[in-house]
Amino acid sequence: MSELITPRVLGGFRDYLPDAMMARERLMETARRVYRSYGFSPIDTPVLEYSEILLGKGGDESDKQLFRFRDNGDRDVAMRFDLTVPLARFSAMHAGELGLPFKRYHIAPVWRGEKPQKGRYREFVQCDFDTIGTLSNAADIETLMVIYDLLSAIGFTQNGQPQFGIRVNNRLILNGVLEQLGVAEKSVGVLRAIDKLPKVGREAVLAEMVEKVSLTNEQAVQVLDLLSTEADLDQLEKLLAANAKASEGVARLRELLSAAKEAGIPASAVTIDLSIARGLDYYTGTIYETFLTALPTIGSVCSGGRYDNLAGLFTKEQLPGIGASLGLDRLLAAMEELGMIGHATTPAVVFVPQFDESKLGAYMHLARRLRAAGIATEVYPEAKKLGKQLQYADRKGFRLAVIAGSDEFAKGEWQVKDLQSGSKEMIADAVLETRLLEILAAGK
Amino acid sequence: MSELITPRVLGGFRDYLPDAMMARERLMETARRVYRSYGFSPIDTPVLEYSEILLGKGGDESDKQLFRFRDNGDRDVAMRFDLTVPLARFSAMHAGELGLPFKRYHIAPVWRGEKPQKGRYREFVQCDFDTIGTLSNAADIETLMVIYDLLSAIGFTQNGQPQFGIRVNNRLILNGVLEQLGVAEKSVGVLRAIDKLPKVGREAVLAEMVEKVSLTNEQAVQVLDLLSTEADLDQLEKLLAANAKASEGVARLRELLSAAKEAGIPASAVTIDLSIARGLDYYTGTIYETFLTALPTIGSVCSGGRYDNLAGLFTKEQLPGIGASLGLDRLLAAMEELGMIGHATTPAVVFVPQFDESKLGAYMHLARRLRAAGIATEVYPEAKKLGKQLQYADRKGFRLAVIAGSDEFAKGEWQVKDLQSGSKEMIADAVLETRLLEILAAGK
Repeated sequence: MSELITPRVLGGFRDYLPDAMMARERLMETARRVYRSYGFSPIDTPVLEYSEILLGKGGDESDKQLFRFRDNGDRDVAMRFDLTVPLARFSAMHAGELGLPFKRYHIAPVWRGEKPQKGRYREFVQCDFDTIGTLSNAADIETLMVIYDLLSAIGFTQNGQPQFGIRVNNRLILNGVLEQLGVAEKSVGVLRAIDKLPKVGREAVLAEMVEKVSLTNEQAVQVLDLLSTEADLDQLEKLLAANAKASEGVARLRELLSAAKEAGIPASAVTIDLSIARGLDYYTGTIYETFLTALPTIGSVCSGGRYDNLAGLFTKEQLPGIGASLGLDRLLAAMEELGMIGHATTPAVVFVPQFDESKLGAYMHLARRLRAAGIATEVYPEAKKLGKQLQYADRKGFRLAVIAGSDEFAKGEWQVKDLQSGSKEMIADAVLETRLLEILAAGK
Repeated sequence: MSELITPRVLGGFRDYLPDAMMARERLMETARRVYRSYGFSPIDTPVLEYSEILLGKGGDESDKQLFRFRDNGDRDVAMRFDLTVPLARFSAMHAGELGLPFKRYHIAPVWRGEKPQKGRYREFVQCDFDTIGTLSNAADIETLMVIYDLLSAIGFTQNGQPQFGIRVNNRLILNGVLEQLGVAEKSVGVLRAIDKLPKVGREAVLAEMVEKVSLTNEQAVQVLDLLSTEADLDQLEKLLAANAKASEGVARLRELLSAAKEAGIPASAVTIDLSIARGLDYYTGTIYETFLTALPTIGSVCSGGRYDNLAGLFTKEQLPGIGASLGLDRLLAAMEELGMIGHATTPAVVFVPQFDESKLGAYMHLARRLRAAGIATEVYPEAKKLGKQLQYADRKGFRLAVIAGSDEFAKGEWQVKDLQSGSKEMIADAVLETRLLEILAAGK
């Protein structure tokens, strides 16, 4: 045997062990279920694309964050850094075939060569959903509903009350106000400044708007005053009546709130917040951020918005759209902190120790019966001492052990041990599945 | 606007459109469900690894098939080309923490820079499951059961009869025979030759064994005669009684068959076939191949086997294991050919056209009600002409449309149209969910 290679992973990357991966899979399955329930279809795109596709002609500073290389055919290729650019390329190629509107979800890993830091990795999963090809506010309303149903399905409710808040805004409002102030062309700088509001506070943002973005002090104050308006729609409507763009923004927000309410979304779950900006100048209409009531400081766990033109790099066809993205890693970190994640390392709930080696086929049969009843069941592969086998079961986090030796086989009954409480009961063979399902349902 | 970039994908890569991706997701979900029901846990590993990890020290010819490059930190890295090497590295690093036996599944994409050809891509998904850390035949039996349950769950049964056959063999038999013939060290060459049997026939394999592997003609004939033995276990046992290794192979196969039968796997689903070899010399015990009754020529759709030492490159600890892999792409191609894949491009079954724009909130409410009843429902985002909306619904493949205008809202009833048959019925609001579920269940 030659020298051993030290097993290790690249910095900024990580293995997912079973407990972490089970939580991730559950979250992704919930997202898929909710997205599908609204008619969003799954797609996938290649991990590797031509660098030109990902970066646009010429590339730019984000270039440095790409895993970019020349492949064996000397093509300039890179690993995708988000799912939006691939969606743009995909839509430009397939919109004709798919027809519009087109609703898709895409749950897949992306890569960025950023400096690794706590909680930030070079490989992470995005969970996006988007509706392409319609300007209708119905899609904006639906996006809000998806976010609400998604957070609820993940478990952020208590006694039927949402334990999260969705903050909505509409870019048209700020853009209208900047237009009115005669500084429409400075919107990118203004957005960047506003984005820092929660971190640096009003005075610093004011200073940035004046010094860096060259607003007058009066203009900057007007913008900041608008953002801190308690968002009463009637009041806003009056305030902005003179500006068509801003008024449209207010009208769309009004319809968003009323339709969501009619659809059964509790009013307490949705707040208008004119200060949310979402730095990207790419957004042009409704924008969304979602905060957890118990952990607001971790930031938004589901964000998105409306954009006018998805695929301008690739096609002359104007493709407006709207969508949002679930922050999988951030949400998992929060759930971990809130004790919402179990620590079992097996997806099976019933453990069958091998008590009597000669009965292997019978244990296998028993396990298949339980699986057919929907009870995930593992048979220990070796006829070790029972204590050793139960130690393994404890460590993995099974709920119940179904134990049978010659006696039990002869009598046609099973000893069932609750691995958490240690309590035991004998169950007749004929009612085994039924009784196990009862115990499992009760213990949930 | 600058010049457009032509949207395209790299050769050997592909986009998955909704119909294809829905079929893939269904298959992956079935695999996850079956793997979990046996207590296999999910893991994930980084797509990028140090090249040294993937290739071993020095690398070798498979080098050329890797997407390998220097990252921004000048590390020699590559994209994984399978899930087995990452499992070996993972097991060497985490076996202590996880405890043995360790059962994992891993469903994830891998990359190989092979020359693209029909049905072969540079990016494809593997669906592996393995049990690490036990020599017990119980794991071999369970592997067979997983393959059986997996193919059944995917839909390869008819009137309860399996429409597939699992062929099993044990490497110990051939190895024992080669040992007996005094040519144990030639096993790799012999395996490679045998692997070609179905393609090139007996004479060509005989010639290769003599000319390339330097067996005598008599030895080669003996090997080939063994492989074509109708596999009666009693007969085999007698034939190989003198050889301990081969006898152990026969005994393990015997126990495999009898336990599987006792567990409820139909005998018709499992055949002993001494001619299956699975070229990799990595396998050391039981091996499996699975063929579809209706399409045997596409080759094995689920294959695997037992190996003695998974992680010898990375650790001195001997980690035996056994596992198999579902051939996702091959299976999907077969299912497509057999008409087992629907052509809907939406996961939703009910379509709600927007008939009366002023009722948007009511449509949204209706759709949420149906979703709460488990019925995936899409509301069309624009109040276009009904004909246009239904055209969209037909194209996407929804099953039913639930249509309501002012009349229906006033009366509290809904017009439900079957989009396949064109038939219509009126359903009272109070029983809408129940009746829709009935219609959907009947139409399955």
